[in-house]
Amino acid sequence: MHQTIKVGKDPGYFLHLGAPLKELGAFLDKTYGASGHYLIITNPIVADLYAEQLLEGLKYFRTDLITVPDSEEEKSLARISKLTEQALRCRADRATIVIALGGGVIGDLAGFFASIFMRGIRYIHIPTTFLAQIDSSIGGKVAVNHPAGKNLLGSFYSPQFVWTDFTTLETLPWVEIQNGLAETIKHALVGDPELLDLVEEKVDAIKNKDLVVLQNIAMKSLAVKVKIVSEDEREKNQRVLLNLGHSFGHALEADQGFRGITHGQGVSLGLLAASYISYNRGLLSAGELARIENILNKLELPTWVTSCDPYVLLELMAGDKKNKAGNKVLVLPVGIGKAMAVADCEDGEIVVAWKKIIK
Amino acid sequence: MHQTIKVGKDPGYFLHLGAPLKELGAFLDKTYGASGHYLIITNPIVADLYAEQLLEGLKYFRTDLITVPDSEEEKSLARISKLTEQALRCRADRATIVIALGGGVIGDLAGFFASIFMRGIRYIHIPTTFLAQIDSSIGGKVAVNHPAGKNLLGSFYSPQFVWTDFTTLETLPWVEIQNGLAETIKHALVGDPELLDLVEEKVDAIKNKDLVVLQNIAMKSLAVKVKIVSEDEREKNQRVLLNLGHSFGHALEADQGFRGITHGQGVSLGLLAASYISYNRGLLSAGELARIENILNKLELPTWVTSCDPYVLLELMAGDKKNKAGNKVLVLPVGIGKAMAVADCEDGEIVVAWKKIIK
Repeated sequence: MHQTIKVGKDPGYFLHLGAPLKELGAFLDKTYGASGHYLIITNPIVADLYAEQLLEGLKYFRTDLITVPDSEEEKSLARISKLTEQALRCRADRATIVIALGGGVIGDLAGFFASIFMRGIRYIHIPTTFLAQIDSSIGGKVAVNHPAGKNLLGSFYSPQFVWTDFTTLETLPWVEIQNGLAETIKHALVGDPELLDLVEEKVDAIKNKDLVVLQNIAMKSLAVKVKIVSEDEREKNQRVLLNLGHSFGHALEADQGFRGITHGQGVSLGLLAASYISYNRGLLSAGELARIENILNKLELPTWVTSCDPYVLLELMAGDKKNKAGNKVLVLPVGIGKAMAVADCEDGEIVVAWKKIIK
Repeated sequence: MHQTIKVGKDPGYFLHLGAPLKELGAFLDKTYGASGHYLIITNPIVADLYAEQLLEGLKYFRTDLITVPDSEEEKSLARISKLTEQALRCRADRATIVIALGGGVIGDLAGFFASIFMRGIRYIHIPTTFLAQIDSSIGGKVAVNHPAGKNLLGSFYSPQFVWTDFTTLETLPWVEIQNGLAETIKHALVGDPELLDLVEEKVDAIKNKDLVVLQNIAMKSLAVKVKIVSEDEREKNQRVLLNLGHSFGHALEADQGFRGITHGQGVSLGLLAASYISYNRGLLSAGELARIENILNKLELPTWVTSCDPYVLLELMAGDKKNKAGNKVLVLPVGIGKAMAVADCEDGEIVVAWKKIIK
């Protein structure tokens, strides 16, 4: 039996957690009836691993499968245009339901596609990475990138539901687990100090990809996100706290053309840069700062970077969506388990933080 | 004093009708306060005619103006990408309010841009064409075209409000008035038989661009649309009736690469093609059919076309967003003042209608 958690209200939607891939078909049949058209959007790697299981469950439905190369660069308007063409070739219409099978890239891309194709059709997300399971599949944010910035064009568009099968973590490379772990540390810093204790305690099991431990950490981690986004679906208030580390991280990713650095690596460095600012402002103790740096190190996430220009990175932060009236809005940790958004960071203060992590 | 009409509910928004351009600034000041950033998106022709009046009213606000070439081809993902770049250069952020100043192309493009830029910012529509005033500015449908079909990628995204200054009709070319008149006839056929009487009676005044008559017709015409979309904002039910003539019209426009034929011309031909099907099914009398053809002729809207292949047009109709499970959904007039959607039109029946208007 899988567990369900509701995200949001009016009407909100459910996360089905620990829900086997092959049981989706029976659930769809119960929910939507036997007719209908399902359009699976995935990448070739995930398709190789999981399409068969999924399609077996969907064999009584009209189903098409489209693969998109596995790359952050595919989160583009050009790919949306191509998907439109492919979807029409599969005779997709307003009744079609998109199934996003994959990680954050697939979820963002297929979700955004569903949000605008024929002015919006339904979609379901099956997150197959740790990052997507604990973070990007929750909260309805979908988007593509633009040369001028990450996730610049998108929507708030909730899926019908999220179907999370944690056994997909078995085949996930360590670097992908790390991407999620960076967000787990962020969730701990923003809202659950005990989650940090747990990660510290279970570091070895995590590195051994112990499924029971990973699932336990995933459940605690996603609970932080569900709580925050349910109270603030449109990011008017405290949802902005979930951007902790991301203003810095996105700038690093953009600086590297979204290729040289993973999202988790960017977030890791960003968490630390934000923590330095908090430390300098007296919001974090030296011990807390060291503890954050230490757990990132133990998870083999980067805590410093080379050959970056802090002033270039500063300029890249100017395009951040959180900024207001020309002021950079940053999220800063306040001790362990709390965070706050500030708009009064001077550029000099930010450069000092960048310099701390650039060696 | 201008008049206001509410569109939709929860929360809905207002049409300000007969609202002078130069008074917008005072209204914005009252509504949103003095701070904020306004990003006007318009085309060079409308900018030449009306930007000065508008900017005079906005002189106490931070305001930028972006022009887009005046062409249906600009309703594209490529233009959305370019607008994104330009908006960022104007330091647009989540608090920016887009002002769409123009006709249907600008409203659709700027509205869709606002719906996805940074996952959605606010916008205001100032419709400057007859078509936009009575039709496209009402109901929150925004979109861009795709090589595979018109308005294939878009959203339902309501403006903050619509600010309609009917005096902009003074400078509007006759062909643009005609674009709106085709929709007026459609509105009459779908929901207001008296509107057809009025247009028939006032044909000469209309052709002389008598502002009082045009405004009167505009008010009655937009009332049909407001009533229908307020009851069905997401096009789940009767809103589909507003597509009368458009399945045929869009196919003609696509066949001509959105260049050879205006939207109004497409709709005129589409209304007649749909009317032929109704006549053949006994839903329209010979007299009613003749009356429709006659008023279109009097308004100098086309009632036949040359060098089109009915089978090519039929194929183009297959991509229509209304279609369900592979069946073409068509809207047919039922007498004057009523319409119905049907999904049982055989291709042969449609080809017969096409042949009636192809000479």
